Amino acid sequence: MTARFISLEGGEGAGKSTQARALADALGHRGIKAVVTREPGGSAGAEAIRGLLLQGGIDRWGARAEALLFAAARADHVDRLIRPALDRGQWVICDRFLDSTRAYQGAAEGVADDAILALHGFGSQGLLPDRTLFLDVPADHGHERALRRDGVAADRFAQQDAGFHGRVVQGFRTIAEHEPGRVRRIDASGSADAVTERLLVELSDWLP
Amino acid sequence: MTARFISLEGGEGAGKSTQARALADALGHRGIKAVVTREPGGSAGAEAIRGLLLQGGIDRWGARAEALLFAAARADHVDRLIRPALDRGQWVICDRFLDSTRAYQGAAEGVADDAILALHGFGSQGLLPDRTLFLDVPADHGHERALRRDGVAADRFAQQDAGFHGRVVQGFRTIAEHEPGRVRRIDASGSADAVTERLLVELSDWLP
Repeated sequence: MTARFISLEGGEGAGKSTQARALADALGHRGIKAVVTREPGGSAGAEAIRGLLLQGGIDRWGARAEALLFAAARADHVDRLIRPALDRGQWVICDRFLDSTRAYQGAAEGVADDAILALHGFGSQGLLPDRTLFLDVPADHGHERALRRDGVAADRFAQQDAGFHGRVVQGFRTIAEHEPGRVRRIDASGSADAVTERLLVELSDWLP
Repeated sequence: MTARFISLEGGEGAGKSTQARALADALGHRGIKAVVTREPGGSAGAEAIRGLLLQGGIDRWGARAEALLFAAARADHVDRLIRPALDRGQWVICDRFLDSTRAYQGAAEGVADDAILALHGFGSQGLLPDRTLFLDVPADHGHERALRRDGVAADRFAQQDAGFHGRVVQGFRTIAEHEPGRVRRIDASGSADAVTERLLVELSDWLP
């Protein structure tokens, strides 16, 4: 079976991490071995960059420096974890990937989409997921969920205001509208199990 | 008097840091206030990235991730230190700048020069020094001097072999040949005072 690269996308508190694990479990029950990873991070170098990106005040980085740091982390992650796993025949489920940079640094912070795609072309040879599952929840709902997380300080992006998070969600919706073949918009309301079932429907053409 | 942006470039152990301070002193004696800074680093964010770039093993980063990290650090440095200083009317003397990325990640590690320039266009709006002073010493001589520094562990680049450092110096020479208006090649042998005098000759058209 062809190894597949799947990204989960969405704003704050949409349930991406929970669904990444649930999806790997569901694939495992069908005999498909999947690696679960995340961005920013996923490899030793990229996790070090993650610390720079998520810690500190909102204005620690300007939008262009931030986009370059995400591209650097992604290049390391793709080279050292994602491509090797796919080459071994494992599926890869990634909690955030390129579309998060397009939504956050692009739609919300104003970096041009073609500039973000050019950085990705340079750093990661333009690698795109075979399918992207966009977990869509209203921005205010997800942002509240993210800020309520027990024991986890709000990171630089969660600290942003409602206007920022509204632009992020709108950014993801625009990508989904323009790239319906790759990007599937999923209603992420309801129980986690119900959402996982919706994700599996979107992958049904690949499943045994 | 117009504020000027001067970069000092060269391989390992060419004397750039010493000359940056000496040049600022010499300008100060002529009534010109200059900020001395360095790359990678020079601003809080860029200094944090410097740690990722210089510490660790030679293969910590691939060439493209490394070029993106340098571009991110430079974007922060330009936005937060270099442009504000020039806007205040201060001269800026920078120990390494864009040409180091072209020599190290480009000539020595194989990243295309136009790709490095494109990253610089995105991150720093293509800001170039008004003049670049390339301190030319034979690669083996400078590399030995860098490795002998008391109490300073060799960084990721100093750990590289003679072939690498030869390509770096050749990279700087090629840039100097192609951009003789901006880049001046200086014989960096002899005493520090003698080298400083040579640098001042290259700036004489700007001095009172």
